[in-house]
Amino acid sequence: MKKPLPRPAADGLADWQPSATQDWRQVPDLETPFVAVSEAPLMRNLQRGAAIAKREGLSLRPHIKTHKSLAIARSQLALGASGLTASKPREALVFIKAGFPSITIAYPVVAAGAARTVLREAQEAGCDLRMIVDSVAGVESLEEAATRPLPVFLKVDVGLGRCGVRPTTAAFDAVLKALLKAPNLKMTGLLSHAGHSYAAGGPDGIRGVAEQEIDVLEHARDRVVQAGGSVDEISVGSTPTVLAATDFGQATELRPGNYAFLDLTALRLGIAGWKDLALAVVATVISENDGFSIIDAGSKTLSSDGAPHGGTAAGFGLAIPVSGSDDRLPLTVARLSEEHGFVDHGGQRLGIGSRLAIFPNHACPVANLATTLTMVSTDGTYERASVDAHATSSS
Amino acid sequence: MKKPLPRPAADGLADWQPSATQDWRQVPDLETPFVAVSEAPLMRNLQRGAAIAKREGLSLRPHIKTHKSLAIARSQLALGASGLTASKPREALVFIKAGFPSITIAYPVVAAGAARTVLREAQEAGCDLRMIVDSVAGVESLEEAATRPLPVFLKVDVGLGRCGVRPTTAAFDAVLKALLKAPNLKMTGLLSHAGHSYAAGGPDGIRGVAEQEIDVLEHARDRVVQAGGSVDEISVGSTPTVLAATDFGQATELRPGNYAFLDLTALRLGIAGWKDLALAVVATVISENDGFSIIDAGSKTLSSDGAPHGGTAAGFGLAIPVSGSDDRLPLTVARLSEEHGFVDHGGQRLGIGSRLAIFPNHACPVANLATTLTMVSTDGTYERASVDAHATSSS
Repeated sequence: MKKPLPRPAADGLADWQPSATQDWRQVPDLETPFVAVSEAPLMRNLQRGAAIAKREGLSLRPHIKTHKSLAIARSQLALGASGLTASKPREALVFIKAGFPSITIAYPVVAAGAARTVLREAQEAGCDLRMIVDSVAGVESLEEAATRPLPVFLKVDVGLGRCGVRPTTAAFDAVLKALLKAPNLKMTGLLSHAGHSYAAGGPDGIRGVAEQEIDVLEHARDRVVQAGGSVDEISVGSTPTVLAATDFGQATELRPGNYAFLDLTALRLGIAGWKDLALAVVATVISENDGFSIIDAGSKTLSSDGAPHGGTAAGFGLAIPVSGSDDRLPLTVARLSEEHGFVDHGGQRLGIGSRLAIFPNHACPVANLATTLTMVSTDGTYERASVDAHATSSS
Repeated sequence: MKKPLPRPAADGLADWQPSATQDWRQVPDLETPFVAVSEAPLMRNLQRGAAIAKREGLSLRPHIKTHKSLAIARSQLALGASGLTASKPREALVFIKAGFPSITIAYPVVAAGAARTVLREAQEAGCDLRMIVDSVAGVESLEEAATRPLPVFLKVDVGLGRCGVRPTTAAFDAVLKALLKAPNLKMTGLLSHAGHSYAAGGPDGIRGVAEQEIDVLEHARDRVVQAGGSVDEISVGSTPTVLAATDFGQATELRPGNYAFLDLTALRLGIAGWKDLALAVVATVISENDGFSIIDAGSKTLSSDGAPHGGTAAGFGLAIPVSGSDDRLPLTVARLSEEHGFVDHGGQRLGIGSRLAIFPNHACPVANLATTLTMVSTDGTYERASVDAHATSSS
C-alpha cells in the first residue's frame, strides 16, 4: 500500500490536480538536464497577452529578456506585437541584426560608446530604436551618441525604487529640461516598470499597484506638458500588472516579458494556473537517500532565484514525475548545489533514473542559463530553438 | 565634510582595510559589466593549494567547475596538479578534447549513453578518465558503457546527505559488491565531498567536519577490505576542508575548486582574507536614488547565490569603488533584479558613471554566467580568457 501523499511544502499550491500538468508526461527522452518549453501553454500565454492588448486598445511590445529567442519573438510579432523590448544594448543588438523593425531598450544607457554602437547598428538595419533616460548624465550620453533624432522615453519611478525619477522631484524637472533641450533626442513619452507588483501578494494588491502606477504617470504627463513637452506614448509593463489590471488609464503600450512562460511566482500570485506553466527543466534522479532524490539539475541550470522582487518561496522549484504513472503531488526542490538538486521525496523514493519536470520559481534566469530551448509539441515531438541572446549579460 | 562611513551590513567583515583591495583600483576601462580575475591573488591562491598538497604529501586534482577555463587549468597543472576534477560528462569533454591527461568525473553518471560518449572521447584522446558510483544502477550503467577496465571510485556520503553511500548501510554493501563483480570496472578507491563544511561556521568547525570525513572514509576502507576489495586511493575535497584542516589521515588526494578564486563565503568562514579574493564583477552605476546606487549587474551576472550549503549572507555581494579615491567601507549589494543591482550607498551617492568592483558571495556561478574572464595584471593590463566549458550545465 502506498504511503499517504506528501503535501508540497510550498505555499499556495493546494489546487494542483494531475490533469493540470498532463502535457508534461510527453517530454522527449533526451540527455538531461534540458530546458523544455511546452508549445501549447506557450501559445496560449502569448495569445492571452495579445488579447489583453487588443481588449484595451493598447500596443503590445513584449520584453524578450524572458526567452532571448528570435523564434519566440517572431511568434509574438505574428500575434500582433508592435515591437520588442530589450534589457540592454548587447541583448538588443541580437534582435536588431536579425531584422526586427522596432525595439525599445528599457534600460538607462549612460555610456556613450555602448549607445553609439547600438544606434549605428539600428540605423544600418533600419530598426526603429527607442531608448530611455532617467538622469542628466544619461541625456548627455545619448545626445553625444545620436546623430539624428532618437526617440527617448523619460523613465518614471512608480514605486519600485530602482531606475526612474519621481514626478514631484527636482531630479524629474532637471532630466526633463535636459531632454527637451537636447537637439538629437526626441521626447516620445513616459515609461515605467512596476516590478514591485511581484511583492503585492495577489491580484487585488497587484491592481492597487497598477492604479498607483497610472496615477504617477498621469501626474508626470501633466508636469511634462506644463514644461512645454508632449507625451505621445505612455509605456507600462510588468507581467503581474498586465495580467491582473482592469484599467490602464492613459497608457498606450504594454511591455510584459514573463507572461510567455510564467512560473511558480506567477502561480503563487494568482495570475496563472498550473496549465499555464510553459517552461520546465527536465532532470534525472541520479542518487537517492532517505531524505532526498538527488537530480542532475542544480543552480547552474535552475538558477538560485527565489521569488523576484521580495516575494517568498519555499525551495527552488516543484517537481512532477514525467515517466511512469506516479501522480503524487508536486515535490519540493528543497536545496540546490551547482549541479545537484535535492528533491524532498517525502519518504517515497522515486527510483534512480526517474525523470522529473521541474517548474522553477522564476523562468527568465533558467532560459538565460541555457543555450537552447527544447520546444515540445502536444504529440511529444520536439525541435530545438536557440537562446539567441544567451550570454549577453556580461562582456 | 563627508558623512560618517556606513558600516557594511554583511557580517564578519569588520577587518576590511582599503589597502586589502588596492589591486582592484587598476581594473581596465572596458564595457561593463565584466567578470575580472586579478592574476596576483589567483596565482597566490593556486600556489597555496599546491603548497598544502605538497606539505601533506597528497595529490592535488583541482575541480574545474569554478573557472571552466583551459588556461587556468593549465596553470594548475603547471603548479603540480596530478589531474583535474569535473562535474559532469559534458563539462569533462571540453577538457578531454583539449588534451588534459587525467580527469575524474566526480558525479554519479547513471545514463549509459552519456557514459559511453565520454569514455569513447577519453580513449581517443588518451585521457586517464576516472568515474564514481553510489548505486547499483550506476554500476550497471558504467559496466554497460565501459569496454575496458575503467577506474571507478565508490562515492561515500560523509555527512552532506547528497550523493554517496554511508559505510554502515546495506546500500554500501550492495554497491560495493556490484562494483567488485563488474568485469569492466576497476575499483580504485573511495571519494567524498564534505560540502557541509560550508555550514560549519569557521576554521574550528571545518576541522571537525574534516576529521569526521576521514573517520567515515577509514571505516569505509575497512569494509571494502573486508569484502575483498582494495583501496588504492582516498580522494577528498572541498575548499574549506582543504584550506582549514591540519590532518588528512589516510587520504591520498585533494579536489578543491573554489580555492582558485575564493569569495565572500570563504571570507566569512575565515579561510580567506580580502587580499585573497581573485574574482570580482566590474559594474557601472547607471541610476541613483536616495536609497540605492543602481548598477548594471544583476542576477544574470552575479547569480542569486547567497552562501552555499546553508550558510548565511546579507545581500548578494560587497562593492568597492574602482574609480576615484573613495575609500569608504565596502557597500552591500542589497537586492538584485535580472540586469540591475541595488547598492546601498548609505546616504552618500557614488555618482552616475562610477565603476565598482563587486565581490560575490559565490564565485563559481559568476564565472559560469560569463563567456570570458578578464584577467588583470598588477600593472592594469589585461587579456581575455575563455570560459571554455561555459553552458555545459543544460543541454
